[in-house]
Amino acid sequence: MLLMGESINGTRKQVAEAIQARDAEFIKQLALDQVKAGAGVLDVNGGVAGGKEIEDLLWLIDVVRGVTDTQLMVDSASPEALQAGVEAAIANGGKVPFINSISGEQPRIDTVIPLIEKYKCPVVGLCLSDQGIPPTAEDRYEVAARLCKLVTDAGLPPEDLWVDPLVLAISADSGAALVSMGALKLIKERLPVRTTGGLSNVSFGLPNRPLLNRTFVSMCGGIGIDGIIVDVRNVLMMATVRAIEALRGEDAYCGTYLKSHRQGLLDPKV
Amino acid sequence: MLLMGESINGTRKQVAEAIQARDAEFIKQLALDQVKAGAGVLDVNGGVAGGKEIEDLLWLIDVVRGVTDTQLMVDSASPEALQAGVEAAIANGGKVPFINSISGEQPRIDTVIPLIEKYKCPVVGLCLSDQGIPPTAEDRYEVAARLCKLVTDAGLPPEDLWVDPLVLAISADSGAALVSMGALKLIKERLPVRTTGGLSNVSFGLPNRPLLNRTFVSMCGGIGIDGIIVDVRNVLMMATVRAIEALRGEDAYCGTYLKSHRQGLLDPKV
Repeated sequence: MLLMGESINGTRKQVAEAIQARDAEFIKQLALDQVKAGAGVLDVNGGVAGGKEIEDLLWLIDVVRGVTDTQLMVDSASPEALQAGVEAAIANGGKVPFINSISGEQPRIDTVIPLIEKYKCPVVGLCLSDQGIPPTAEDRYEVAARLCKLVTDAGLPPEDLWVDPLVLAISADSGAALVSMGALKLIKERLPVRTTGGLSNVSFGLPNRPLLNRTFVSMCGGIGIDGIIVDVRNVLMMATVRAIEALRGEDAYCGTYLKSHRQGLLDPKV
Repeated sequence: MLLMGESINGTRKQVAEAIQARDAEFIKQLALDQVKAGAGVLDVNGGVAGGKEIEDLLWLIDVVRGVTDTQLMVDSASPEALQAGVEAAIANGGKVPFINSISGEQPRIDTVIPLIEKYKCPVVGLCLSDQGIPPTAEDRYEVAARLCKLVTDAGLPPEDLWVDPLVLAISADSGAALVSMGALKLIKERLPVRTTGGLSNVSFGLPNRPLLNRTFVSMCGGIGIDGIIVDVRNVLMMATVRAIEALRGEDAYCGTYLKSHRQGLLDPKV
């Protein structure tokens, strides 16, 4: 399972403060902590769009690349920031980064497809169109199918499209997670893409959110989700991820699971 | 999700001792504790086959029926014990019990089908044939399809067949859980039966078994398993079950989830 570390995000207070103060040590530690915890990709988000977003994003990318060559995921709502971020990630032999994200919204397609054509960036694709988030699994699948055609027409191998079926809070709509899981099943059955998701919205408004989040990640893991966008520093979540990988036969001889156990990382009381 | 409480089982030491001593209070408490924890069906197993199994099973059924009218599940390897147990469960207006279990083994078919014809008992069906446990998901599905035909020919509605895809230990074969999940997917897609399983074998031989067991139940829950054979007194497992039900939209307004939270049952530190 590909773990997309979500923590270097300028919309979060502590990270925003570190960016403001140009506290490189804080950001470096955040990068290294995520890599150590198992992140295969590091999301970098410069914060809310505005005058300084590009400058902040480029600083973040520079700082993170100074301590790790883990693949980056350039995360922005701004076309200019995406382009600048991708170029900064690639400069001087850096790995081609993920783009977070394309969707079925036309302005987003117009922004991201040229970047994919030019740089062949793997990309997270949100099941979201100009009409919003489709209420049915079948309609979310339709967005995914459209994105698959668009990115492959742009020269990307389909397995470099990581579709996020999106999830809303079950506290507002008790069928919300079912729709996401239904979309995930359809996508896994019918498209050669991969799948991912930031799944924690599912528990918004309910108590014991970590329990719901871990359980939902496991349920999606059973359906076959290929990656997750997650705080890899969450020890209980990572214990669950290690269990999922062992159960899916992705962990030869349960080696990583056993190593995590020896490190005391699997005990639910941590 | 139908919770099949597994704890009244004479092959377990404490229960065997209670049966030997005719300690009705112990058995009553075990029944009531499981009902309180959410069991929808109570498995009753008189212990290893032998001279006294039938007598012990009938005593168990009598004791349990004295404190609850929860549906029973008569569990035995012996044809005579199954028949006697089913009759004792039904006697004096008792609910028709589940039978645990039929399989694709011919002697088992010959034992159980006549009971189904006569009493229309819902039945757990193991994906196991005279050749043993099939190594592939497709072959386990084939056993399930055969059982579906057999029980419906015997007059049972297909939804009263609860297929258990069976699971072996991932410590011995890292693909073991994948095969079970694959079989579960095929059965859910292609057959009008329901699905269940005693899933804890999956973690045999590994540390932190409860973590693996909870995660595996969640993964199967994502695929759509309809029931589980489980120790409902396991608080952490039940917290996971409540989360699965809420996420599958089976818990209106997350009412049971919220009630469990208020009772302090969802905290992973219990």
